[in-house]
Formats: sequence, C-alpha cells, structure tokens
Amino acid sequence: MYVVCPDLEGILVPEIWISVAEKAGIEELRLTTRDVPDYDQLMRGRLEILKRVNLKIRDIQEIIQSMEPLDGALEFLEWIRERFQIILVSDTFVEFADPLLEKLNRPTLFCNSLIIDADGTIADYQLRQRDGKRHVVEALRGLGFEVIGIGDSYNDSTMLEAANHGILFRPPQNIKSEFPHFPVIETYEELKLVLEGYL
Amino acid sequence: MYVVCPDLEGILVPEIWISVAEKAGIEELRLTTRDVPDYDQLMRGRLEILKRVNLKIRDIQEIIQSMEPLDGALEFLEWIRERFQIILVSDTFVEFADPLLEKLNRPTLFCNSLIIDADGTIADYQLRQRDGKRHVVEALRGLGFEVIGIGDSYNDSTMLEAANHGILFRPPQNIKSEFPHFPVIETYEELKLVLEGYL
Repeated sequence: MYVVCPDLEGILVPEIWISVAEKAGIEELRLTTRDVPDYDQLMRGRLEILKRVNLKIRDIQEIIQSMEPLDGALEFLEWIRERFQIILVSDTFVEFADPLLEKLNRPTLFCNSLIIDADGTIADYQLRQRDGKRHVVEALRGLGFEVIGIGDSYNDSTMLEAANHGILFRPPQNIKSEFPHFPVIETYEELKLVLEGYL
Repeated sequence: MYVVCPDLEGILVPEIWISVAEKAGIEELRLTTRDVPDYDQLMRGRLEILKRVNLKIRDIQEIIQSMEPLDGALEFLEWIRERFQIILVSDTFVEFADPLLEKLNRPTLFCNSLIIDADGTIADYQLRQRDGKRHVVEALRGLGFEVIGIGDSYNDSTMLEAANHGILFRPPQNIKSEFPHFPVIETYEELKLVLEGYL
C-alpha cells in the first residue's frame, strides 16, 4: 500500500516566501530552501527582516490568502487522492498554510508552527521535530507503507533518500546537480505516468 | 500540534459488513468488531460465508456504492479538517472503502487490503500490520503530534490507550462496560465541544 508524500511549496503551490517578498516588495525575503541548505539560518534571517519592516502575522496571512495553487495542482492532487493515500510534508507553518489547504480541498499536511506575540509579531518558529520530513517518511515505512516522496529543495533531500521512491519535481539546477540520483520530473502529466507505474 | 484519528465505520459511515449483511440478506454477516474481539476469527468467518454464498468483490462493492455516510458525518469531518490534521484509521480494506471516502471528500485513510482471485473471489485479507491502529497512533506521537483517537469497538481499544486523548463515540454497551475509563460521546455536536477544548 502506498502513501504519496509531496512537499507543498514548489510542488502544489508557489513558494510562499517568494510571494510574500513580491507582494510586500521586500527583495531579501526571496531566499528559500532551494537556495539555503541551513533551514534555521534561513528562518532566523526571515524573522529578522519581518521584525525590521514591521510585517505582522495578519499581513502575511492576507498575502497568502490572495495566492492560488499552481496551475493544474488541484486536479493533480484529486487524481492522486483517487488512487493513493497522501500526506503533504512541508516545512511551512500551519498559520501560513491554511488558506492554501482550503483551496486544495484540505489534504492532510504535516508541517511546523509559529510562535506569535500578543501584538501579532512572529517571535519565533517551532519545528515539530528536527529533519521532520525524513521522520514522517520513516514512520510511514514503519507502518508497512511504501512511500513515494516528491520534493524540489534541500530540505526534501533526506525524505527523498528515506522514501522507497524519491522524485524531484521542477527542481532548480543546483538541486538537480547536487542530487543527480533522483529522477527529475517537470510536469504533472509526467508525474501521473510515473505514479501509475506503482498501481 | 494535533492529529485526530477517527475510526471509519460506526463513527463516520455505517458498519460496512452490517450493510452488506442486510442488503445481501445474509444474517451471519452481521457480526462486527463490536461483537467479536478476535479480528482474525471474525474475518475468517466472513470470508467463509462469502465463498459459501458466492458473493464476489464486485457484488460487495456494488452494495457499498449504495451506502451513505452517517447523518452529519461529512459536515463534522469538514469541521475537523478546518481545525486539525486528520488520518482515518480503520480495519476495513481499500477495496471496500473507496466509494465511501469519495463521499467524505477523500480524507487520508490508513487501513488494510484484500487478496482477490482472478474470478473476483475474496481469497484472503492482508493486515498492513498487526494492531495497525495502535502503531499509527504511536508513530504519530513519535513525530511530535498529540493524537486524539475516536473509536467504538474492540479493535479501537489499543489505539485509544496509545492516544493522548481516547474517546468512545456511540459505543455499544459491552464496549462501554469493558473500557469504562474512556469518555463516551453520543453526538457530533458534543464531540465538537470536546475537540474545541484542545484548540
């Protein structure tokens, strides 16, 4: 029995931080896990910037509310859900993901959370656990599932290694070069063909 | 962060085997995990009966196709999904569950599978693992989640014990008596109140 574990950003929805960077006009917020291997360093930097420009949780949620899933993502996700079990694995935060999950018909998502001050400042972030995506994949395998992991970033590499089948979807060149042993897929149609092979 | 783990049958949809028993007119198929503590003994008996009366997988799927979720179940499930992550845990089989999952907007379900002969006879069943529900709850706790388990039968008792919060929903009297330490809830409205307490 299979569980498909796709990452959220880059796979089904746009990169949230890039959208926030663009819509809030803050160039420095454009860096993502595709660029920076150290997630904590990346997040510390983001929280610094948010405090400096006085962007509160409500401001960010408003921006995210205006985002849409990637073209074809909802149909692709429905296609998966008719054929496999699915758990989205992401390093985003529940406080960010909610409006996007709603637009995706609320698939189950395992991610992290934020610590928010009384005035709405994002004070800190809380990983559910370190290397959480890999642990999810390992736990699912321990439950007797075969896991198909789909990611695009540095923070997906250990879960793709841990999965029975690891797939890179539309990865940037640096990820492709650093992890040449994962198959690289560029469209949902191709991805369906690969997934169909497991049925 | 919470994951809610409801059982499927009795909680969100009617007992599948009771529906099959009624619609196929086979009284002996009415026994469920609410009556028989030994799941393997229960399943061996069911498969014997199906072979004897020559009921094939297609016949059973047709009956299940005509079933509906319990009154209010879809709304209740949507309510949970807006507030918590959710994984349904069931000892049913993917081959049975599919039409009901579709009517519930396809929440993630962890369950078992059937071994089906070329002529459509259900030859055997395959547990994903022994005591699978408990293992799911333990794995989720190992991933840093607090787990709220909701069940009604013998085969739920170990997962309710393993959960941070175990709840019996509309259990029959024998289950209530044997597991008096779990709170007993009779309606979705009451269940929402309890779940709201964890938000």
